[in-house]
Amino acid sequence: MRLKRTHYIEKLNKEFIGKEVIVSGWVLRRRDHGGVIFLDLRDRTGLLQVVFEEGLDPKIHELADSIRIEYVISVKGLIRKRPPGMENPKIPTGEIELVASDVEILNTSKTPPFPMDEDLSEVSEVVRLKYRYLEMRALDGLKPFIFRHQVNQTIREFLNNRGFLEIETPFLTKSTPEGARDYLVPSRLYPGKFYALPQSPQLFKQILMVAGVDKYYQIVKCFRDEDLRADRQPEFTQLDMEMSFVDENDVMILVEELLAYLFEKVLNITLDTPFPRISYEDALRYYGTDRPDIRFDMKLKELSDLFKDTSFKVFRSVLDSGGVIKGLKAPANFSRKELDELTGFAQEMGAKGLAWIKYNKNAKSFEEKWSSPIVKFFEKPVLEKLEETFNPLEDIATFFFVADREEIANSVLAELRIHLAKKLNLVPEKKFSFVWIVDFPLFEWDEEENRLVSVHHPFTHPKEEDIPLLETDPLKVKSRAYDIVLNGIEIGGGSIRIHKKEVQKKIFELLKISPDEAEEKFGFLLTALEYGAPPHGGIAFGLDRLIMLMLGKKSIREVIPFPKTQRAQCLLTGAPAEVKIEQILELHLLPGWEKKKEN
Amino acid sequence: MRLKRTHYIEKLNKEFIGKEVIVSGWVLRRRDHGGVIFLDLRDRTGLLQVVFEEGLDPKIHELADSIRIEYVISVKGLIRKRPPGMENPKIPTGEIELVASDVEILNTSKTPPFPMDEDLSEVSEVVRLKYRYLEMRALDGLKPFIFRHQVNQTIREFLNNRGFLEIETPFLTKSTPEGARDYLVPSRLYPGKFYALPQSPQLFKQILMVAGVDKYYQIVKCFRDEDLRADRQPEFTQLDMEMSFVDENDVMILVEELLAYLFEKVLNITLDTPFPRISYEDALRYYGTDRPDIRFDMKLKELSDLFKDTSFKVFRSVLDSGGVIKGLKAPANFSRKELDELTGFAQEMGAKGLAWIKYNKNAKSFEEKWSSPIVKFFEKPVLEKLEETFNPLEDIATFFFVADREEIANSVLAELRIHLAKKLNLVPEKKFSFVWIVDFPLFEWDEEENRLVSVHHPFTHPKEEDIPLLETDPLKVKSRAYDIVLNGIEIGGGSIRIHKKEVQKKIFELLKISPDEAEEKFGFLLTALEYGAPPHGGIAFGLDRLIMLMLGKKSIREVIPFPKTQRAQCLLTGAPAEVKIEQILELHLLPGWEKKKEN
Repeated sequence: MRLKRTHYIEKLNKEFIGKEVIVSGWVLRRRDHGGVIFLDLRDRTGLLQVVFEEGLDPKIHELADSIRIEYVISVKGLIRKRPPGMENPKIPTGEIELVASDVEILNTSKTPPFPMDEDLSEVSEVVRLKYRYLEMRALDGLKPFIFRHQVNQTIREFLNNRGFLEIETPFLTKSTPEGARDYLVPSRLYPGKFYALPQSPQLFKQILMVAGVDKYYQIVKCFRDEDLRADRQPEFTQLDMEMSFVDENDVMILVEELLAYLFEKVLNITLDTPFPRISYEDALRYYGTDRPDIRFDMKLKELSDLFKDTSFKVFRSVLDSGGVIKGLKAPANFSRKELDELTGFAQEMGAKGLAWIKYNKNAKSFEEKWSSPIVKFFEKPVLEKLEETFNPLEDIATFFFVADREEIANSVLAELRIHLAKKLNLVPEKKFSFVWIVDFPLFEWDEEENRLVSVHHPFTHPKEEDIPLLETDPLKVKSRAYDIVLNGIEIGGGSIRIHKKEVQKKIFELLKISPDEAEEKFGFLLTALEYGAPPHGGIAFGLDRLIMLMLGKKSIREVIPFPKTQRAQCLLTGAPAEVKIEQILELHLLPGWEKKKEN
Repeated sequence: MRLKRTHYIEKLNKEFIGKEVIVSGWVLRRRDHGGVIFLDLRDRTGLLQVVFEEGLDPKIHELADSIRIEYVISVKGLIRKRPPGMENPKIPTGEIELVASDVEILNTSKTPPFPMDEDLSEVSEVVRLKYRYLEMRALDGLKPFIFRHQVNQTIREFLNNRGFLEIETPFLTKSTPEGARDYLVPSRLYPGKFYALPQSPQLFKQILMVAGVDKYYQIVKCFRDEDLRADRQPEFTQLDMEMSFVDENDVMILVEELLAYLFEKVLNITLDTPFPRISYEDALRYYGTDRPDIRFDMKLKELSDLFKDTSFKVFRSVLDSGGVIKGLKAPANFSRKELDELTGFAQEMGAKGLAWIKYNKNAKSFEEKWSSPIVKFFEKPVLEKLEETFNPLEDIATFFFVADREEIANSVLAELRIHLAKKLNLVPEKKFSFVWIVDFPLFEWDEEENRLVSVHHPFTHPKEEDIPLLETDPLKVKSRAYDIVLNGIEIGGGSIRIHKKEVQKKIFELLKISPDEAEEKFGFLLTALEYGAPPHGGIAFGLDRLIMLMLGKKSIREVIPFPKTQRAQCLLTGAPAEVKIEQILELHLLPGWEKKKEN
């Protein structure tokens, strides 16, 4: 480099007028006005107009003339005030420009596959991921990653100040397939043995509590070999925390303080704390899901009681077979076409159908308030109770009903609720509504495996008062777990953990993990619990997801520098890829992907 | 928990006298003085004496009586001044004690396998790694990890302030086996394909420079499946940095500032900057190695010229066959036994033998100054020149000589130099001597592979002025690489990278990487270089090793929370371990470790 940068562009302003500087960066735009060449030069920090005027050393001018979009250059020159009327108030350097006296072309560039100075959201993601470096270099392309950097540092700053220690846990660890599928790493030194990449540092952070660390955190990659429905990544980043001598309240308060600090500092948004806490049961009751979006109201109503004597066949048969009727109220009228669409939506979500009744508060008579093909099946007292239950403040409303097994009624109405809120623009923009979900059951019944499985993970502490129920009615046992939900998306979850060996063994027993299997998989944890394990608990955040929500992005891929596709491929490098057969044999593996087997 | 901690122990001091507090932690020691029970209770922050006096509620006293070493307890009570004469000046809380009024046993503990209040360096590492959590919880056991936490935060603080962005690079990436062996991760979705764990984020950080990031860093795990001679780990932590629009000087200055800041802040040590820079050639000439320990002098001397006319057969034949004679001076006399031992050491290091001459400055005559079985072979002028060359300031000295091929003479004398310095206590304690090694050759010749290989890696920029030599004499080309060595141990290395595609292609060509192979392995980098790659360079530090040296530890395992053994095993969890056959088959692999193969 002949011309060494003296200043980042963001440092330049009117105070530099008359001064000589050297800036380096990429050419965003180029304009040739009859011998006068204008370049918009940008570096990570800003955009600056550079002018090559007539009368410049012909060699320099010739060089400038050869510069094309995205060339990398260094330019020397004087800063001057732009001529009156030529200012650009949209950029911080809009009142000045650089009059070039010398230029060095540091590298050329082919023409990028997409424009570098426009919104790229219309460009296909396949192209953007393949040329991720160009997408990042495009105007505003680095913003999510600069933001992410700030989030990381702010989280660390908060936690460091609270006495948390950042401690690294291993990546080459042991497969403990109680959860998602592990990524395996074959061992070369131990034929037939494998490491596993961690799904989370769960066991290590518990071990760190036994080690007396007291407060631990880590911003760390975790790995899950899942079928990537929805917005998941095979490797994702977790903010992982654990504390000793705490109860759930301590963890939740700390997290609220952390998030309030973070949002204040990086978004200048003041969060309302404490966040509401809703029991798992109430979340299902009122929102149909344990990930409620509480930015808007529109709660579900339980209507089984109301309709308990109905003769309407559809409702009757569901009630008789142990199902439920639940409903919600949308503050709007819908056309027949819209109602058909909504019914289709409900059916896609798993409902057999969707019943609806339109309501008009100002109708002339009580009867005329109601319109629906099914309204004729209901007596006046039922409709009166319906009106009382929904208590519509609006003049016009539509009530929707799903009659089905409780899980289905809940899940369908949960989706319908979100769908309607979006359709009716009831979701406030730029609002961040956090909610804690608490009082989860410890276990649920897995029909396929015909056994209890953990709702969270097997190290979750049962509620102290429910411990006797472990013996008698384990499905009634509640856990000391808590999930945190932001705008309807789960961003974190944690619990107070079991710190006594007897309790942990009992849980394994109930999960039908035999003592041998428990010893083999979790023996080191069970041993550690015998040597003075303190009460402890923690939480883990999906950091990609949190950052996505903070930035209002639609996918975590937008905030991960080099994400994989939904089919777990890296479009930039081409991973996964073939390797040399020697590499495979060195790992004592035989290629089995053609399913040839010895017999 | 009935008794919830109100204070960390470190917060307690004389100002708390008369106040009630609750502390939680582990029982380090227990003394029973006829009904009065003393406990030394510790948490992460300190140690506090707790007294259960006679006359306490009998239930509480009984509970206290049942407490054993390493039990986890919470104690409530009043802080009081210790009785006169009972103070312990060795601990910060030595003037106070806690008079217990209540206690809660939070967990019991088996007796630990080693004492928790003593230096554990005598305990076998196997036991310490198996019970790593107890080693960490033992007195001072967390110190290395608290220190490591501080190092991480200080590095980040410095780099954040300098405008570096922390950006995460992928772990599931592509195998590029130009370097050590990769750890592979079989893909379930793409039979026969593999991800590789990164040996370093090298390519990604270069891509980030093309992306306009300008300054990048990351504290990140890297992976190498090496045979673990010496003090290596399969997974290790790297401080990884890269900058755009810089030359080698910019990187070296920034690193010096970073290290000076770090040492000042966490060790209160002021480093002398700039660090000396020694060319690769001079490092070999004067220290026999490119990792010189310059805490002491004792430079090697080239003596081939001095002995060029010698008739001493051993030297003669080496010189005639193109070898060299090099020597060093130890400022000491040695017994015959010691000289035999040193000869043995030199032979172990690869020398055929070790010649020595003792020197006594104050001898009566010139002849009597010299004593050695070989001195008779040398004429007076040769000995005079020897005296002049070594110029001993000491009265007594011994000169050692190795005659061999240059590489062997260098490597043996390099080891002998360190060995003698330790033996003679010439290595100053607590001294941190950094040195840059520069002007490396770009290539070396690999006899086995019969081709050029990169001394650093294939992305290292050749010196600008040597680029023409690529065509004519590539082994003469010097690189823009720099290694940083601390006390004789390489702690980091980096270079200015190639940013032009033509140069990169030329290097691949010289390395006998075919265009197809280059495209397959590094195609994404080559493509990126075509789209406006800026000049850039960086460095990567072995953070485990740096922290080990800062703490004066003997092994990186002492500063890694959960290290693997030299055979790549985790003694805590037992990784690597067997997995279910279903897991293997799902990855389209057939177990091949019994070496059954289809024919």
